[in-house]
Amino acid sequence: MPATTNRKMSPVSITRVVIDDGFWSPRIETNRVVTIPHEYRQCKETGRIDAFDLTWRPGVEPVPHYFWDSDVAKWIEAASYSLATRPDPELDRLLDEVIEKIAKAQQPDGYLNVYFTVVEPEKRWKNLGMWHELYCAGHLIEAAVAHYEATGKRRLLDVMCRYADYIASVFGPNPGQRYGAPGHEEIELALVKLYRVTGNRKYLELSKFFIDQRGQKPSVFQRELEHLSDEDSRLNRYFFDKNGFDTSYCQDHLPVREQSEAVGHAVRAMYLYCGMADVAVETGDEALLRACRRLWDDVVNKKMYITGGVGSSRLNEGFTQAYDLPNKDAYAETCAAIALIFWSQRMLQIEADSRYADIMERALYNGALSGISLDGKKFFYVNPLASDGTHHRQEWFGCACCPPNIARLIASLGSYIYSESAENLYVHLYISGHADLNIAGTSVRISQRSDYPWDGDIQIEVEPDKAAEFGLNLRIPGWCRKASLALNGAEMDISSICNAGYVRIHRKWQPGDMVRLNLDMPVERVVAHPNVAENLGHVALSRGPIVFCLEEADNPVPLQRIILPRDAKLTAVFDEQLLGGVVKIQGEALLIDDTDWGDELYRFNPTAVRPYSFTAVPYYAWDHRTPGQMRVWIRSL
Amino acid sequence: MPATTNRKMSPVSITRVVIDDGFWSPRIETNRVVTIPHEYRQCKETGRIDAFDLTWRPGVEPVPHYFWDSDVAKWIEAASYSLATRPDPELDRLLDEVIEKIAKAQQPDGYLNVYFTVVEPEKRWKNLGMWHELYCAGHLIEAAVAHYEATGKRRLLDVMCRYADYIASVFGPNPGQRYGAPGHEEIELALVKLYRVTGNRKYLELSKFFIDQRGQKPSVFQRELEHLSDEDSRLNRYFFDKNGFDTSYCQDHLPVREQSEAVGHAVRAMYLYCGMADVAVETGDEALLRACRRLWDDVVNKKMYITGGVGSSRLNEGFTQAYDLPNKDAYAETCAAIALIFWSQRMLQIEADSRYADIMERALYNGALSGISLDGKKFFYVNPLASDGTHHRQEWFGCACCPPNIARLIASLGSYIYSESAENLYVHLYISGHADLNIAGTSVRISQRSDYPWDGDIQIEVEPDKAAEFGLNLRIPGWCRKASLALNGAEMDISSICNAGYVRIHRKWQPGDMVRLNLDMPVERVVAHPNVAENLGHVALSRGPIVFCLEEADNPVPLQRIILPRDAKLTAVFDEQLLGGVVKIQGEALLIDDTDWGDELYRFNPTAVRPYSFTAVPYYAWDHRTPGQMRVWIRSL
Repeated sequence: MPATTNRKMSPVSITRVVIDDGFWSPRIETNRVVTIPHEYRQCKETGRIDAFDLTWRPGVEPVPHYFWDSDVAKWIEAASYSLATRPDPELDRLLDEVIEKIAKAQQPDGYLNVYFTVVEPEKRWKNLGMWHELYCAGHLIEAAVAHYEATGKRRLLDVMCRYADYIASVFGPNPGQRYGAPGHEEIELALVKLYRVTGNRKYLELSKFFIDQRGQKPSVFQRELEHLSDEDSRLNRYFFDKNGFDTSYCQDHLPVREQSEAVGHAVRAMYLYCGMADVAVETGDEALLRACRRLWDDVVNKKMYITGGVGSSRLNEGFTQAYDLPNKDAYAETCAAIALIFWSQRMLQIEADSRYADIMERALYNGALSGISLDGKKFFYVNPLASDGTHHRQEWFGCACCPPNIARLIASLGSYIYSESAENLYVHLYISGHADLNIAGTSVRISQRSDYPWDGDIQIEVEPDKAAEFGLNLRIPGWCRKASLALNGAEMDISSICNAGYVRIHRKWQPGDMVRLNLDMPVERVVAHPNVAENLGHVALSRGPIVFCLEEADNPVPLQRIILPRDAKLTAVFDEQLLGGVVKIQGEALLIDDTDWGDELYRFNPTAVRPYSFTAVPYYAWDHRTPGQMRVWIRSL
Repeated sequence: MPATTNRKMSPVSITRVVIDDGFWSPRIETNRVVTIPHEYRQCKETGRIDAFDLTWRPGVEPVPHYFWDSDVAKWIEAASYSLATRPDPELDRLLDEVIEKIAKAQQPDGYLNVYFTVVEPEKRWKNLGMWHELYCAGHLIEAAVAHYEATGKRRLLDVMCRYADYIASVFGPNPGQRYGAPGHEEIELALVKLYRVTGNRKYLELSKFFIDQRGQKPSVFQRELEHLSDEDSRLNRYFFDKNGFDTSYCQDHLPVREQSEAVGHAVRAMYLYCGMADVAVETGDEALLRACRRLWDDVVNKKMYITGGVGSSRLNEGFTQAYDLPNKDAYAETCAAIALIFWSQRMLQIEADSRYADIMERALYNGALSGISLDGKKFFYVNPLASDGTHHRQEWFGCACCPPNIARLIASLGSYIYSESAENLYVHLYISGHADLNIAGTSVRISQRSDYPWDGDIQIEVEPDKAAEFGLNLRIPGWCRKASLALNGAEMDISSICNAGYVRIHRKWQPGDMVRLNLDMPVERVVAHPNVAENLGHVALSRGPIVFCLEEADNPVPLQRIILPRDAKLTAVFDEQLLGGVVKIQGEALLIDDTDWGDELYRFNPTAVRPYSFTAVPYYAWDHRTPGQMRVWIRSL
């Protein structure tokens, strides 16, 4: 594996991390025994898996869709991560079976795509802008890397190297090669993964080629259009023909190094930014990295829901102008929050700044986790921050990107917790369990135990094989206003050793050293920037990393009539029976009262308010009871 | 003229009313010298007038539209009202010229419609649901009645009687006649006008026939569809095919006497309700009148903007569910507010209850008057209650119903001020000038003088030819919380003589009797019913009949950040230089301040506020300065 010398740390692979956590372990197990089998069944029953048999013939229903391959790929990736952390012979066998189908679908030249092999073979590479060929290839590459790392089996990896080699022969700057970039980014980050696992620099260069093709004049998507029929370019025209030709929908408005504002389809954008960060760090491309930082600031400071959801508009499944964050009409696709986690993790490794981990955690516990039901069988595609009671999770979608995406995130959660570098060990997330790392030439087991996210009291044990000098870096979350730290029982002064959001304890560690970190976790009232019009005069409640919401199930009144006075006492109570066990927030608010209103629609007398005891629950757990209204932002005084 | 025995009073015709008013006289003059000529030019230049020459041939542009006739008809009506109150030989001649064209367009059988004579003659009466034939006929009838009453000339009246006779031969319950009702109501109220001016009961019966056809099972519009091609029924299917066949768009969901909720296209609904009230009162149909009362309550208590605008949705140009009154996305068509005035006036004559006059006044000074610019040359079709600065009046519209509608309203304003009955004289609106009435067999001149709507001090002089006993009924507006009354200098106790919103001074009146009414007119904070979600936590400012708004021109800040504390002092100041001379409201509010916000999108520290001096102006006068934001509802504490 090539060194990734330009980043400050590297994530610790899930194969070296054990999660034993009150919050996450049941979710990971549900993911393994419910979600992954459920998604396999869905892929099987909808024809997505058997489509790789290439037996489709004209007239047969269903017709494979050109994004089907990616759903199966993400399922393989999720299942592989699961297998990596928990042996499961049946799943192992099933993976081999599916992978074998995929391998056999590969064409003699290395090409591998169901739709453009059996349905419209003459249209291979004809519409990169809209037809998801390179996107599917990217997900299959990610699946191959995950399966190889989980099992050591090279079958899919070899297949995908052949496919990638073929793609690299078609696209590129050399004579006889062609221009082009994927309309839906994904292969860029996948090729860097393939480079890292194979050491073959060609894949990194191909990733950089695709990234550099973006934003050229004329646009590769405009050049492509010249060869497309009206019928075949219908979607392109729909998405690109906006007061003139405009490919900002797929981040093609400017060369990537000149980009400063997140635009267009949010998942496309996030996947691109992941690939940009990867290529930047692998090639030492500072201009590309600076663009990543600018785009990051734009997303996080102007275009992100408090839940970590991004992409506020249904129209483009993506970004609009700064501060345009409607609540009920929020799009905030589950995949976009997940992809923000991917990007955050990449930026975090590069920058070693906890602000990236803060966003990773925010999206993880809120806007991404909301995407899956507590029982692991239903999914949100769209994650609004207010509902009239009509928005519900579904078992599957025709466009089924979100279900396997959340499955692969949960199955790979271990890889987000720790990082290691030559002289430092980092703890980003407080999730109980342990990991085996290599720091300063020493094997170090780090264990942590807490009731996070419900409690901020965290015990960390450091067990180097032998005494060794290195830095233990513990994240002080951005949401935490008061933290304390003790080493082997002795209080430490955090402020003197805190840097970029991490307290660093640099010393010669002895086996059995114990660190205790206490993160004060009161209920907080969050306000949004006044430019967020809908949230003016409203607050959201958060505690630790968790964002709360009001649900009608707890508050059988019109939720928009609840007013939270500034001095209202707010109490956090753990309720084991509620929604799988959650902390709920209770408090005394006011309720706008209409009992003294008669028939009149307008009047001079102010509307009365009366005391109202409300309960708020974690946002991620909403929509599990009698359908009803939901609101994150609460009217306040 | 037949007696309309079932109503408590009758409006006083404009020919007997003289307006000499600081607020209205300049508007009526602008209407005469600017708006009516402007609208004539628009009708002329767009081909609407010359279309009556019937010279259109296939291939010629523009193709007459099937609603064009109605625009010319409403212009004739407006011009006739203007002529009735102010001699204008040139306008008189122009009217004759246009009327002559129309007369010559009448077919031998009496039929009169440009589109279905020259463009698609084979489609006469084929699609009553969508093609506006009867709607155009209705407006031409109204024009004919207005022109006859203004000038005594029978030319257009005779033409329209012939047309109405022909329509009455085609439609009806008798053998050889056909079913059908207009998709856009209008002819119902017009036929009652024609009945009242001619005394021919056939027209009243035809109006009742059309009203009774509505809401039958199967729907007349469904039966009609069976004979229409796919192409010809495109609009019908668009508006009627909503989870099954649903003609609530044109109030055809239930028989009219069973209706209780205002549904569908707002102008259609209002015109229907006018026709229902007319037929109810002329035929003594109590069930029909009860339906009018129920519908009235539904509109006014559940579905009306504070401006008197109705029909909140752009999708159906009409009603949605109760309390759905979005501000920025309000539709609130000018025609609908005008038609609410028409309906209010009818209900007022029947019921003698000031709540009808209150709504008439509310719509007149706000949601209708906003429809025309101060210079009389530009018009709103849509009247939102909030704007980001992109909504502006236009000189004309392809569908130009609103401009001539506001012109005919202003030209006929005199007829809304007074009513008379055998023993009573009513003053509904406080507009300076005088009227000559017949009460108790005596000629009575009533004069009033005030600075209304800016001031509530009103002087009324009663001058019977000779001493006569009758009741003088003066409206105490619903907006007025404190009124005082003096007769010839002696204070009177209002509460003992107030009934249904009118103070009644019944006595033997002597020439020169003077009444002084003082309506206290403080600035009021209005709140909306808590079910109006967008207005929760907001107040609107009103003073007298005038609703105010914030405009960016006076308040160069994000208007949604202005907060009005409950105890803020509010001052009304007349500003002669502002917007043609208006009272403006000034006060000390708070402004949500973002100067201590850095880059962050969310934070725990509450957002600061700072004092802010704001100015509000009358809503009707908005959009006359540098384009910018506007808001009626102001955030409040």
